[in-house]
Amino acid sequence: MSEKRPVVLKIGGSVITDKDGELAAKTEIINRLAEEIAKAKLSSLILVHGGGSFGHPTAKKWGIKEGFKEAGQMLGFAETHHVMTVLNGLVMDALVWHEIPAVSVAPSCGFLTDNGRIKSSDCTLVERMMKMGFTPVLYGDVTIDDKLGFTVLSGDQLVSYLALKFNASRVVLGIDCDGLYDADPKADKNAKMFQHLTLNELKALEGRLAKPTNADVTDGIRGKVRELLPTAEKGIPVSIVNGAKVGRVYKALVGERVEGTLIERA
Amino acid sequence: MSEKRPVVLKIGGSVITDKDGELAAKTEIINRLAEEIAKAKLSSLILVHGGGSFGHPTAKKWGIKEGFKEAGQMLGFAETHHVMTVLNGLVMDALVWHEIPAVSVAPSCGFLTDNGRIKSSDCTLVERMMKMGFTPVLYGDVTIDDKLGFTVLSGDQLVSYLALKFNASRVVLGIDCDGLYDADPKADKNAKMFQHLTLNELKALEGRLAKPTNADVTDGIRGKVRELLPTAEKGIPVSIVNGAKVGRVYKALVGERVEGTLIERA
Repeated sequence: MSEKRPVVLKIGGSVITDKDGELAAKTEIINRLAEEIAKAKLSSLILVHGGGSFGHPTAKKWGIKEGFKEAGQMLGFAETHHVMTVLNGLVMDALVWHEIPAVSVAPSCGFLTDNGRIKSSDCTLVERMMKMGFTPVLYGDVTIDDKLGFTVLSGDQLVSYLALKFNASRVVLGIDCDGLYDADPKADKNAKMFQHLTLNELKALEGRLAKPTNADVTDGIRGKVRELLPTAEKGIPVSIVNGAKVGRVYKALVGERVEGTLIERA
Repeated sequence: MSEKRPVVLKIGGSVITDKDGELAAKTEIINRLAEEIAKAKLSSLILVHGGGSFGHPTAKKWGIKEGFKEAGQMLGFAETHHVMTVLNGLVMDALVWHEIPAVSVAPSCGFLTDNGRIKSSDCTLVERMMKMGFTPVLYGDVTIDDKLGFTVLSGDQLVSYLALKFNASRVVLGIDCDGLYDADPKADKNAKMFQHLTLNELKALEGRLAKPTNADVTDGIRGKVRELLPTAEKGIPVSIVNGAKVGRVYKALVGERVEGTLIERA
């Protein structure tokens, strides 16, 4: 374990890409988020980002999440990983430009899954890098899977796994709306945002949450909530804020009061 | 181990980048080499590429090879890794475009060195990928180092390590001249190229080789020869051909007679 408990920050794919486009990165937002991360000057940080219009359409087209069925998908696996590294490259570019000693860590080379769930990982080098003061940057990726041959590993599952593994002090999720709602705020005008949720309230919400209208390969918000449960259970607070709005990720990173949903064990 | 013995192909950084430029990729050559690799239709292949004008100037500027000395170098480590992933991205793009199921594998996440030499590696997932028919693509990169804190891991050291680890059937080195010479052919008009070298001749050459005029952080040709010794000792034949000339890498990959230097144990 690192001496300092890291903050784990997830930036949603829908924040840094245009989900209606294809391979459409929002480089201005990526740049602004890098600025906020640099300004926060955290002593220990792990960054994870999603796939948005890079990973998702490619993975879906080739049925990567459902696993290996025919040789033609091999190229789809390669292509999905490749487009994710392209998006990651844009993120890394902005981070290094802002003088953050960030090092990309491809999950496909370090995480083995079993039926879509992380089975084992070799985080020795990630840990060494963190102890030296580097910021590891991971992302939703394809993985080799014991049951399925291969599959998709979501950034959300990685966040939860890393937060537990490295005993994070806090998790911050930068998503494309203001926080967690009781319904999809983009489809339902009456959707109400939660300012605060306890673990028990989160559990109740998980059952109720309707699937979002635009389901992506990681099952949208419902999947996110499900992934958050073990983190909240461990007592690691989770802030969910709008990554598309200026300053919110920064405030959440440094622990300032910020518009969004805060999840705490009790 | 993979059921099929892989061919290990190294593409020199000076073949795919302009060493006199900075971050200057030769995308036409990258594309043509991807075409030759696709045409060779090997049943098992590992690809390694060098850093050229991407990795070398950045690593040199920050003294990464010499190890961690002060906090300012952290950004240099991050930057060196980042520019290598940018060059790798161009290579991956060409490979995937040519329908090669290639997956990039960042050495910084999987290889630990001790005083610059590979000490341990977790190649479990690379092996699984190879068994499924994927082509892993590695490259010269920065690594965490037990003695130095961090350092540079050359593509040449990786080639030798992977050839031994996966019991390669053959190693092909695509470099920026026609083969191995008894002197630097770019500085010495009388330099003579070897068509064939035995292990003993290679050993003798290693001692004699003058350092090249334009030394890069991997010590140029002399370093390459030194790295090749264990491979040749194991009885794995090594073809050194000009990667900048059309068709030579293809011929070497499929085992056709080709202009270049062939190294065999006896």
